[in-house]
Amino acid sequence: MGTEILTVGTELLLGQTVDTNTAWISQRLAEAGIDVFYKTTVGDNWGRIEAAMRLALSRAEALIITGGLGPTEDDLTRDVLAAVINRPLKPDPAVLAHIEKRFAQRRMPMAENNKKQAMVPEGVEVLHNPRGTAPGLFAVADGKAIACLPGVPGEMMPMCLEQVIPRIRARFGSKGRIVSRVLKACGISESTLDQRIGDYFREMRNPTIGVLAHRGEIHVRLTCKGDDPQRIGAQLDDLEDKIRERLGHLIFARDEEVMEAVVGRLLRQRGATLAVAESCTGGLVASRLTDVSGSSDYFESGVVAYSLAAKQALLDVPRALLEQYGAVSLPVATAMAEGVRRRGGTTFGLATTGVAGPTGGTPEKPVGLVWVALAWEGGSSGRDFRLLGDREMIKHRGSQMALEMLRRHLLGVPAEEA
Amino acid sequence: MGTEILTVGTELLLGQTVDTNTAWISQRLAEAGIDVFYKTTVGDNWGRIEAAMRLALSRAEALIITGGLGPTEDDLTRDVLAAVINRPLKPDPAVLAHIEKRFAQRRMPMAENNKKQAMVPEGVEVLHNPRGTAPGLFAVADGKAIACLPGVPGEMMPMCLEQVIPRIRARFGSKGRIVSRVLKACGISESTLDQRIGDYFREMRNPTIGVLAHRGEIHVRLTCKGDDPQRIGAQLDDLEDKIRERLGHLIFARDEEVMEAVVGRLLRQRGATLAVAESCTGGLVASRLTDVSGSSDYFESGVVAYSLAAKQALLDVPRALLEQYGAVSLPVATAMAEGVRRRGGTTFGLATTGVAGPTGGTPEKPVGLVWVALAWEGGSSGRDFRLLGDREMIKHRGSQMALEMLRRHLLGVPAEEA
Repeated sequence: MGTEILTVGTELLLGQTVDTNTAWISQRLAEAGIDVFYKTTVGDNWGRIEAAMRLALSRAEALIITGGLGPTEDDLTRDVLAAVINRPLKPDPAVLAHIEKRFAQRRMPMAENNKKQAMVPEGVEVLHNPRGTAPGLFAVADGKAIACLPGVPGEMMPMCLEQVIPRIRARFGSKGRIVSRVLKACGISESTLDQRIGDYFREMRNPTIGVLAHRGEIHVRLTCKGDDPQRIGAQLDDLEDKIRERLGHLIFARDEEVMEAVVGRLLRQRGATLAVAESCTGGLVASRLTDVSGSSDYFESGVVAYSLAAKQALLDVPRALLEQYGAVSLPVATAMAEGVRRRGGTTFGLATTGVAGPTGGTPEKPVGLVWVALAWEGGSSGRDFRLLGDREMIKHRGSQMALEMLRRHLLGVPAEEA
Repeated sequence: MGTEILTVGTELLLGQTVDTNTAWISQRLAEAGIDVFYKTTVGDNWGRIEAAMRLALSRAEALIITGGLGPTEDDLTRDVLAAVINRPLKPDPAVLAHIEKRFAQRRMPMAENNKKQAMVPEGVEVLHNPRGTAPGLFAVADGKAIACLPGVPGEMMPMCLEQVIPRIRARFGSKGRIVSRVLKACGISESTLDQRIGDYFREMRNPTIGVLAHRGEIHVRLTCKGDDPQRIGAQLDDLEDKIRERLGHLIFARDEEVMEAVVGRLLRQRGATLAVAESCTGGLVASRLTDVSGSSDYFESGVVAYSLAAKQALLDVPRALLEQYGAVSLPVATAMAEGVRRRGGTTFGLATTGVAGPTGGTPEKPVGLVWVALAWEGGSSGRDFRLLGDREMIKHRGSQMALEMLRRHLLGVPAEEA
């Protein structure tokens, strides 16, 4: 049972947008046991969209198309589909009402051309889009299934997962599955990881192990093939146990869970609260923590003290300390953590101060030097990191190390262990 | 002069690797004036690699292939190429010596299968690979050019730039170039924008106009083809002027410049400083501002006041105000902006308070309601927004609207205009 993916958009051919949609769709199809044999990308050009659609339908049983469903002139997917399956386009009242409602919600005038998005080829199913104006389409023609999805990932993903893949599976049935599981480690190098679990790596055939370094994290991906979901689950559990035995607390999360959510879960479990004081991370630690729904249960407040004056005024960092050790130092990081904790009246205070670069580095305090400190009732700890990358990367890795320090403290794991 | 890109690798079809190579290659080809009409991805399967190669050669004058040049069983590109252009594979002594040297340098035994990488189809040029073992290949058959590149970006990129694109340009004498320019607008819907400049859209053939909505921004892409870089620049300038005439201050940036950098530039020009007070955006406004190198010149401090207590303690928001109007209100947003400005001693205070969701919404204050306020010496202003999307999206759009409010104030543009 073969499926193809067709992505439409001139910005993709010009390389101005990296296509992340097809990788995501491919993963979901693999998990559903649906083979993908070809992926194709074409620009906003009627002739080539039509040619690519016809070719794909000549090779595959199902075709998933993303992009080209918008309201503008160069959005052609809807019209080309109608031509290829030879069905007239008709306005769909329900879709039109949905679009009008969204504009009303945003209290924005709805332009005439938005009505184009309410046009649906006769006999084609409309895939509701709660997150945007452009609905998806699901057509069946000559025994082939064709799904059209919006190009915006946030709109495409749920529609694909909840509405398209179930329809394709139901239509063509598929037994085999490929299931992946990702174990996330932090504060460990790829080579160290290879030393610890390299043997599984080389031995294992099913499940297989893949390792990917990703923004201050290392993702260990276990991929298992089979027909029986239960057996696949058991095989993955078995390998996961083996790997956890070797890596222990270095693994901070599994699959979609992110560091800020893990830390939040641990804080909530302990009924603890947190305030953060940031210099070099500039608010990123607070922003990541508050990305988690319900974070108001444990996240109390944050202070971004960029200037020396702000460090004194907002965090009570003694001027003498700043003069003696400089802003990027353990004593100042600790004073920031203690200050924000005292002011916030929280269980923990977490602080970062460092040199994010690209300028401002010195031989003693180079770009990438970041001090992280944690303060609690009657105690504190801190350490420095030498982080690589550009400013944005150093900010991200600094925030990661700060969250990891708190995570390890909450678990009673030594901050230094790797 | 049309070129196609073919990427080979089962990991791409399984979505375990996001293909960033083709976007990069596409950009380089566009800059070199070489059109790309199709991109295709196939797995490590002889039949499908061959079919994709033959199809591409039937449509295009040049084909760039990445991946499948490694030493392992499933690396088939070299062999399929030899079959498609009907040339026997022969060992290349120079390539073999290069591979053996690399293994010697790394003091590693060279496995027998690495010799496979020294096999070259008769009459095909070898593209030296100083960064890896797998050499690239450049073949000419039936007047078509075929380049095979390694899939590893670090090896592929220099080879493509230094050895492949010059050969393709030389061969097909493409003097032409494609230059793109992106104008970024904020606080306007895609369809409204289409109403304002839709006629250019429909009329213009060169340069052409493309529109892409992107996280609270709309990107208007002008793409111009031609032989003379100066003339291209003039054509783009002319169209940019026309569009700016219609959209005026709605365009906040061009090309790579981001909103936080624009606001920073305006603050610096005016010698102004900024402090931010955030509730629903949770530190994202501060984090975006501090993503900009040199932001310490104008960014003084930020406060993330998530709890009511924090709003009172860190921002001096009167308790009565919180009780009377609630945390998500214009009076509280204004008090936050004034409080953070007073404490920071800055020219401006910028504040956000809203319902990021997914929980916490009420009929009067639904998820997505965000109040933004700006305070300055002797004055303040604020407005509310109804933002759509998930929590992360609402946070991002909220931060965008806050920065946009400050930008418009600095430029003396009405906050409401759209």
